Amino acid sequence: MSEELKQVTHIDNVRLGEDEKSVVIIDQTQLPNRTVYLTLRTPEEMYDAIKLLQVRGAPAIGICAGYSIYALARQWEIGSYTEFAQKFHEQKEYLNSSRPTAVNLSWALNRMEGLVTANAGKPVSEILDLLGKECRAIHEEDIAMCRAISEYGLSLIKEGDGVLTHCNAGPLATSRYGTALGPLFLGKERGMNFHVFSDETRPLLQGARLTSYELQKAGIDVTLICDNMASIVMKNGWVQACFVGCDRVAANGDAANKIGTSGVAILAKHYGIPFYVLGPTSTIDLNCPDGDHIPIELRDPAEIREKWYAEPMALPEVKCYNPAFDVTDHTLISGIVTEKGICRAPYTESLAALFKK
Amino acid sequence: MSEELKQVTHIDNVRLGEDEKSVVIIDQTQLPNRTVYLTLRTPEEMYDAIKLLQVRGAPAIGICAGYSIYALARQWEIGSYTEFAQKFHEQKEYLNSSRPTAVNLSWALNRMEGLVTANAGKPVSEILDLLGKECRAIHEEDIAMCRAISEYGLSLIKEGDGVLTHCNAGPLATSRYGTALGPLFLGKERGMNFHVFSDETRPLLQGARLTSYELQKAGIDVTLICDNMASIVMKNGWVQACFVGCDRVAANGDAANKIGTSGVAILAKHYGIPFYVLGPTSTIDLNCPDGDHIPIELRDPAEIREKWYAEPMALPEVKCYNPAFDVTDHTLISGIVTEKGICRAPYTESLAALFKK
Repeated sequence: MSEELKQVTHIDNVRLGEDEKSVVIIDQTQLPNRTVYLTLRTPEEMYDAIKLLQVRGAPAIGICAGYSIYALARQWEIGSYTEFAQKFHEQKEYLNSSRPTAVNLSWALNRMEGLVTANAGKPVSEILDLLGKECRAIHEEDIAMCRAISEYGLSLIKEGDGVLTHCNAGPLATSRYGTALGPLFLGKERGMNFHVFSDETRPLLQGARLTSYELQKAGIDVTLICDNMASIVMKNGWVQACFVGCDRVAANGDAANKIGTSGVAILAKHYGIPFYVLGPTSTIDLNCPDGDHIPIELRDPAEIREKWYAEPMALPEVKCYNPAFDVTDHTLISGIVTEKGICRAPYTESLAALFKK
Repeated sequence: MSEELKQVTHIDNVRLGEDEKSVVIIDQTQLPNRTVYLTLRTPEEMYDAIKLLQVRGAPAIGICAGYSIYALARQWEIGSYTEFAQKFHEQKEYLNSSRPTAVNLSWALNRMEGLVTANAGKPVSEILDLLGKECRAIHEEDIAMCRAISEYGLSLIKEGDGVLTHCNAGPLATSRYGTALGPLFLGKERGMNFHVFSDETRPLLQGARLTSYELQKAGIDVTLICDNMASIVMKNGWVQACFVGCDRVAANGDAANKIGTSGVAILAKHYGIPFYVLGPTSTIDLNCPDGDHIPIELRDPAEIREKWYAEPMALPEVKCYNPAFDVTDHTLISGIVTEKGICRAPYTESLAALFKK
């Protein structure tokens, strides 16, 4: 692997602090202009880091949540199991309320709490050691999952293809290779070349600030476009596949992802381009029957009117509608790429089968 | 008409200077934060005002070009017809090269030059008087055309409807009512209420800076969204019609308009929502057989990476593709609304018929 590629895919985006009582993250809101590491110690700092997208990307949020609840538990100095379990639950619920859409957040926190419940009555010090292993396991498993997703995804494209992506599902949002961007990094490692079109992804510009940054740094050919240029780029014949991540996939294959993803899928269908959703099975929520049951986070209108700008770009009294996600209907999805393989329609069957293996 | 509505629709966006040797415009790049009037005296100032979008909107560009070439001609103090006609041609060509896509620019300039040619040999002072009348006529006719377009457009929607628009085709871009926004202002004047969704329209944010500004000031219910939110807004059932302007319509009905318009049309078709293009017949170019023959202006990548922002939002070495327009295929268009009526498919026939009346 080349050094430039390794520097991107092995970025230290989320890790446990050396004292194991804190979490260290790269502040993604400062990229690409500054690489700033933040040390999160209090529940409020952890909540805000997720809420304010200092750490973002469904898998990275899950990893951060696992490390966070463990780091908090290490701080408590509680001897009683009952007291420990109760405080653990309270803090877990608090962290879980930071963002509603990505299922990985609650998935990781529930997995950590499951360990506390399963070891009821054991000494707290022992449970803490188990929790430390568990949050590291979540991270390690994500690295392996991203690698496997990248392999499956790479099988869907060929040398020289144009790939359009929306938002950011690369190393910063996950672990190592990423999900939607994983096949591109893996292909690059093997000497393949792709032409990537990165939607800038308003209002928070993850495509401009993070995706084009990661790909450019890794030496992968990338062209940044505004979200509304996806149509002309597809019409020009420059795109052979769309790769996007996901924040929650319902049992029927409806997939929530960054706002605008459903529009990309509709354009891809119009132009006859395959549209793939890539994500670990931890993103699949079989308890959620369809997209109508996925809660959609609404964010501050100021993100549209003012954020990033040197001066406001709309009158302060103008209303804004600012949903952070939308749901792509399963009928628009050519395949859902997981670490266990590529699911195809009918998704109700192919997704359920993943969990029976 | 209410005062607030009149203040928006009777805005003095482009006019001849009192000396008739200059043109006065509102600098649209400074809105909504500042209302700044610019006096254009030199050919370079006029060229730059169009190139830099200080004046923009296909009809407003046409009006500005007519006034500009007249104001320049008034400055020359040339007695010889031959010399005058030659200089007129040179300056016309220069102004015409400022932006390639909107046909109204060349349409207005050719109309002015046609008058010079038609009056070959007459005293220059007489020709100057005719030119002064002609550029005012272009403006007056545009006011009447916008009014007629607004009437036809209003027939397509009903009380309480949601209307989605992209970019800005209101009073600033035209004269008085506007084209795509015209039916909304006219309806408001008659006491009707609509819910308008304004795409912010990256990268130059005409929807945020101009459309939401105009509608808000006029007391019309408007919600600003990022371009990539059009899909969820349509899926939510909030949109009953899409109204957009146009910069050039080919003989087969393919319509060039602000980048992203074709994406809106594809979404509208997917969700079963009618999609209308509104513009004066001066925007229809029967010499252009289809959209493939419409030149698409490519603009500076810095508009995507840096413009408006407090600091750059992508690495400076990241490539950007920045087309200012795209072409909406005629098969996606429910109707083309002109001052002479609403054209429906087959457009090759209905558009040609407009010019035979």
